[in-house]
Amino acid sequence: MKFTEQLAGAWQKNDSLLCVGLDPDPAKFPAHLKDQPDAIFQFCAAIADATADLACAFKPQIAYFAARRAEDQLEALIAHIHEKHPGVPVILDAKRGDIGSTAEQYAIEAFERYQADAVTVNPYMGRDSVEPWLAYADKGVILLCRTSNPGGSDLQFQKVGAGGTVLYELVAEKVAKEWNTTGQCALVVGATFPGEIAKVRSIVGAMPLLVPGIGAQGGDIEATVKAGRTAAGTGLMINSSRAILYAGKGEDFASAARRVALETRAAINRWR
Amino acid sequence: MKFTEQLAGAWQKNDSLLCVGLDPDPAKFPAHLKDQPDAIFQFCAAIADATADLACAFKPQIAYFAARRAEDQLEALIAHIHEKHPGVPVILDAKRGDIGSTAEQYAIEAFERYQADAVTVNPYMGRDSVEPWLAYADKGVILLCRTSNPGGSDLQFQKVGAGGTVLYELVAEKVAKEWNTTGQCALVVGATFPGEIAKVRSIVGAMPLLVPGIGAQGGDIEATVKAGRTAAGTGLMINSSRAILYAGKGEDFASAARRVALETRAAINRWR
Repeated sequence: MKFTEQLAGAWQKNDSLLCVGLDPDPAKFPAHLKDQPDAIFQFCAAIADATADLACAFKPQIAYFAARRAEDQLEALIAHIHEKHPGVPVILDAKRGDIGSTAEQYAIEAFERYQADAVTVNPYMGRDSVEPWLAYADKGVILLCRTSNPGGSDLQFQKVGAGGTVLYELVAEKVAKEWNTTGQCALVVGATFPGEIAKVRSIVGAMPLLVPGIGAQGGDIEATVKAGRTAAGTGLMINSSRAILYAGKGEDFASAARRVALETRAAINRWR
Repeated sequence: MKFTEQLAGAWQKNDSLLCVGLDPDPAKFPAHLKDQPDAIFQFCAAIADATADLACAFKPQIAYFAARRAEDQLEALIAHIHEKHPGVPVILDAKRGDIGSTAEQYAIEAFERYQADAVTVNPYMGRDSVEPWLAYADKGVILLCRTSNPGGSDLQFQKVGAGGTVLYELVAEKVAKEWNTTGQCALVVGATFPGEIAKVRSIVGAMPLLVPGIGAQGGDIEATVKAGRTAAGTGLMINSSRAILYAGKGEDFASAARRVALETRAAINRWR
């Protein structure tokens, strides 16, 4: 099934715009997991099992696995989610970006090795660096547009051309009008800038937006939802990672995560 | 030893501005290697052994390893180069780029797990996304500036601000004047645009430039060297991957690679 259809199904079935980010940091794991050889898998699978009926997507961040030689656990985690929770898509947060022949290899990594349903991609190298991802017709390609970090403005807020358009708006325009010929694209727009979410929404129509930055990064849920929702009250994947993952510090970490996921879903749904 | 000192040492000792790119594609390997379980390591190590006295750096491209679950072979390859060919730095071509807490994980991947001497990084997310890399004081951080692919112009050639500056020039200015406070930075500038190499050189002083795009991508060696060399006749890491790696198709692939590396080094040195 196409990523966009999976996502639309999860929005509806789980009544949720919440994307659960899986950024496993073993230093923050409950004590009973710390000595397990597959602690990263166990931790993330337990979080996924506890939140799968509350989420529209899962988003493992590959750096947390790669830093610890845990690629095998990432493979196992995505396979686990596909098997146990079909219908909830998995976004591999990798922010890759390279020339065509190398991008083909990265696409093999994300879509064939890891079996991700979608991947995040950096747009700096332009359209032909994105095409190898789009060659996988069922997969989603989520391009960085406006990122939630302070330095995001360094390039993204540069005025381009004569009309006062800034770079992230140009990225939104290019993706919406030129790159997204197959309907596979989405954009990353940080929750720390609700006015800019609204701006991007006005440029891209109903294209899905992945919104990091609520929770630990301080973004405002009400402002995010009001700025980014579509006429149908969907269109968003609002990501929360640390606030959910580390809600509990003991053996009850998964039920603590479920409690925060329930609260976050409700906080989002209040403004849809 | 600092990356920049290693690089300067290799420029001098090997009389070379040639960077040998290690993009291993098993479909192109000689027949006698194809059934080996560690064919990727064997192929790349043989290329490295055959060219280490002719190169100023090696540049493994991580996507080619990740697409084939060969992270262990990448670790072994970099360890092999460090052990057998000390003084020739290893650049991990990964083009990562993410917010600070995730960039820290990517830096662990590149510098602690793989023990790379330098890494390529995407600047789209701005200065704070680069700082976790710079926290490793001996390591090199090579930022994408002007890439050699056709789509590189989509964003990089956008006019920013009033003065006619385009985005890649702004990246060069920001890196040279603001981000490179510790002398660890370098830039990627494609060989397909010699005039733009000259422009970047005029902005960044003697900062090292990694130049992909000669060989298979068609860049002109004479124009590249004349545009990018410093007053000392160095300052460049001119990358060639496929033309060297796949110079031979049989058991003599390493000596064929050496022959092409010798020719390429001479072709570069002719114009220094």
